[in-house]
Amino acid sequence: MKAALSYIEQHREPFLQELFEWLRIPSISAEPTHATDMKRCAEWVQQALLKAGLDRAEVMPTNGNPIVYGEKIIDPQRPTVLIYGHYDVMPVDPREAWLSDPFEPEIRHGRIWARGANDDKGQSFMHLKAAEAMIRTGQLPCNLKFMIEGEEEIGSASLERWCQEQTERLAADLILVSDTSLLGWETPSITCGLRGLCYMEVEVTGPDKDLHSGLYGGAVANPANVLSHLIASLTDEQGRITIPGFYDGVRDLTPQERALFAQAPFDESAYRASIGIPTTSGETGYSTLERTGIRPSLDVNGLWSGYTGEGSKTVIPSKAFAKISMRLVPNQDFQYIATLFEHHFRALAPDSVTVQVRFLHGGMPYVCPTDLPGYRAAAEAMRQTFGRDPLPFYSGGSIPIISTFEKVLGLRSILMGFGLGEDAIHSPNESFALQNFYRGIETIVRFHSLYAQTMQSLQA
Amino acid sequence: MKAALSYIEQHREPFLQELFEWLRIPSISAEPTHATDMKRCAEWVQQALLKAGLDRAEVMPTNGNPIVYGEKIIDPQRPTVLIYGHYDVMPVDPREAWLSDPFEPEIRHGRIWARGANDDKGQSFMHLKAAEAMIRTGQLPCNLKFMIEGEEEIGSASLERWCQEQTERLAADLILVSDTSLLGWETPSITCGLRGLCYMEVEVTGPDKDLHSGLYGGAVANPANVLSHLIASLTDEQGRITIPGFYDGVRDLTPQERALFAQAPFDESAYRASIGIPTTSGETGYSTLERTGIRPSLDVNGLWSGYTGEGSKTVIPSKAFAKISMRLVPNQDFQYIATLFEHHFRALAPDSVTVQVRFLHGGMPYVCPTDLPGYRAAAEAMRQTFGRDPLPFYSGGSIPIISTFEKVLGLRSILMGFGLGEDAIHSPNESFALQNFYRGIETIVRFHSLYAQTMQSLQA
Repeated sequence: MKAALSYIEQHREPFLQELFEWLRIPSISAEPTHATDMKRCAEWVQQALLKAGLDRAEVMPTNGNPIVYGEKIIDPQRPTVLIYGHYDVMPVDPREAWLSDPFEPEIRHGRIWARGANDDKGQSFMHLKAAEAMIRTGQLPCNLKFMIEGEEEIGSASLERWCQEQTERLAADLILVSDTSLLGWETPSITCGLRGLCYMEVEVTGPDKDLHSGLYGGAVANPANVLSHLIASLTDEQGRITIPGFYDGVRDLTPQERALFAQAPFDESAYRASIGIPTTSGETGYSTLERTGIRPSLDVNGLWSGYTGEGSKTVIPSKAFAKISMRLVPNQDFQYIATLFEHHFRALAPDSVTVQVRFLHGGMPYVCPTDLPGYRAAAEAMRQTFGRDPLPFYSGGSIPIISTFEKVLGLRSILMGFGLGEDAIHSPNESFALQNFYRGIETIVRFHSLYAQTMQSLQA
Repeated sequence: MKAALSYIEQHREPFLQELFEWLRIPSISAEPTHATDMKRCAEWVQQALLKAGLDRAEVMPTNGNPIVYGEKIIDPQRPTVLIYGHYDVMPVDPREAWLSDPFEPEIRHGRIWARGANDDKGQSFMHLKAAEAMIRTGQLPCNLKFMIEGEEEIGSASLERWCQEQTERLAADLILVSDTSLLGWETPSITCGLRGLCYMEVEVTGPDKDLHSGLYGGAVANPANVLSHLIASLTDEQGRITIPGFYDGVRDLTPQERALFAQAPFDESAYRASIGIPTTSGETGYSTLERTGIRPSLDVNGLWSGYTGEGSKTVIPSKAFAKISMRLVPNQDFQYIATLFEHHFRALAPDSVTVQVRFLHGGMPYVCPTDLPGYRAAAEAMRQTFGRDPLPFYSGGSIPIISTFEKVLGLRSILMGFGLGEDAIHSPNESFALQNFYRGIETIVRFHSLYAQTMQSLQA
């Protein structure tokens, strides 16, 4: 491993120059004007995989942007790690807010500034360079496979089908992903939980047209009032969701897991200040990080009915609508939750209105057990690089493709990311700390070495 | 009185031809392109008042459309009736839905078809022709004053100030208005109650920007969920409004009044069918007509928050808004109710959000006691024309100017209208039954005679 680590040390500058080349390609998947850039970017990735020393790399077409696949098979008996990343980036609007050209990377204050510097070109590139360091120094301990897609920022629409078609090619022991952040400079962490999502839309209909609220007010159920009652009754005074059966599948963390998670540094007053709220609130008996990380939630995402313009219009609306989504935790199933929601919502509605409930979108929650060999290898690799044990972190967000990998490929993912909250991914002036870029490459090399050892000792 | 009634009988055709002239003027107050039509229309009214035999009539400027004032003073010792009407009409869109030109009146099926045929040119014109019949036959028993405004359909913005400036000129014993409807062909009625209005807007603010519902959901108060809770708690299971003190001023009808009101014909299943609702609902212990006529109500008129477009966006909105209005009954004061509402709404809000409450618009409720001499005269006049006693009717709507008259001029109004629900005022194909047009003129003549007798006997 030593030789690989010194290879990294010696190639700091060329690694950076090569990443800059990639960052200069404006591969914005959301904007159709960048269609040729997407293609050019995929081809660049293919060449970069070959340059890193892989045996083969190909640009594979999909109905959307191509997926780049590459592999280095050293020995079918050795463990195989499948690396996932993406070459597409977010739009850059508002462009005038950028201090430097988003597609002309610069180094300032020890950081790389560019769209994609972190998300996910910078983080994906660490894997290419870790592979190169191991291959060029003869220290690659396992087989490597890469899948780098071009639609992550627009929902990974082509990836599930492609995985279904390529299950054989993608056979591996584990998926390794760097597309998340650390809790802080001094607080290494591994994301081991992601919440799922169940997104519904409801429509409450009262009268068949808008009515004059003077002539009819008091005698006709107002769908906006009724909808408010229905939404209010979905949660109780304890901040718990009242849908019968909703919590049935919820996996509680063990006291040990909860204690470890509680070590995550969290500054409540800085949190409140950052979003301008006077006080946090939520389910009784849980901390803020637990409320977003390991407990399900229910939020109204949109609400509309009647007259919403200036001034006053005295109308009883015919209809009232809401978008309501629930974040789910292991082992809640979004399709089952959608059914429970619909059943409950219909049952609550008075017979003076009619109700429609539509399922819009869903994703399964994901959890990576901290006793998984891959998690243990990642934790040890981080400890060696950062000088302290990483904390398991349960994120409130969702990365739907991670649960798709589990479903389609039967593989767990290790979410070992090296970003920081301050990197402003998805915002103007995205950046990635140089130190984390290099620490990431080192940690990945250590991971492969440790993981291969663990797996071989398990086989033995 | 007989001579006046035969004058009407003999002038049926010229009355109609003169009304047609008026109906041909497209005096749509809501459309600025009709500014010169408004002026022309006011001048037409002035000439028509003189033609009816009044001593004087003038077009009086305001900041908006002019008000036409006219009077016939026969003896300062006699009672004085002030007649209110309006010469402006509603827009005609969609014009293609009209079976004939809205500004070229036609007679079909015993009805006058034109914009304004009923509201309010047709109904105002009855008063001009009743005056003419009484004046030309030497049978006018009281002094008459007319105020015909041109902004009723856009909120009567200039009228209150004008009344304040003209209190001396407008001195009278009573105001008589024909701008309402009868319960039915065979069911004469007098509108003796109008609800008031208190229209509020509320704004609930949670975080200072929209947040990702995955990362924050469960730990941050969602203003749309909170607003739903707040709205839900404004009414209880009995359909009563929970604002402390809200019902304190409410005047209950006497059992006699309630019994009389209960005679108003009402077909619940036709009512439901006409607005497409499966069942009526509202405050326990009251009928549908009572719920809209004599009880206050609370309705959400508009509701908006977060993402309201197609599909799903996982956002915790920063803000949620609602327009909430209350219909008031005697003796609720809209300004006091606005204060109670604001106080209660703020008190209900959890400290995890901030709340703003704005008063947008209000109007006082109105009630005309059925033992008022003017009411009794109107009731007897109707009985003589229609052959049966009129029912007192409590309408759920508001005519804010009526309570303004009471406040500014200290005068009660008698709402003796001759329209029918089927007249489709404010809609395409407005019409007014010829029979009601003539019955109205006769009833007005009878009213003046009866009212003058009553007032003189009271003086004696």
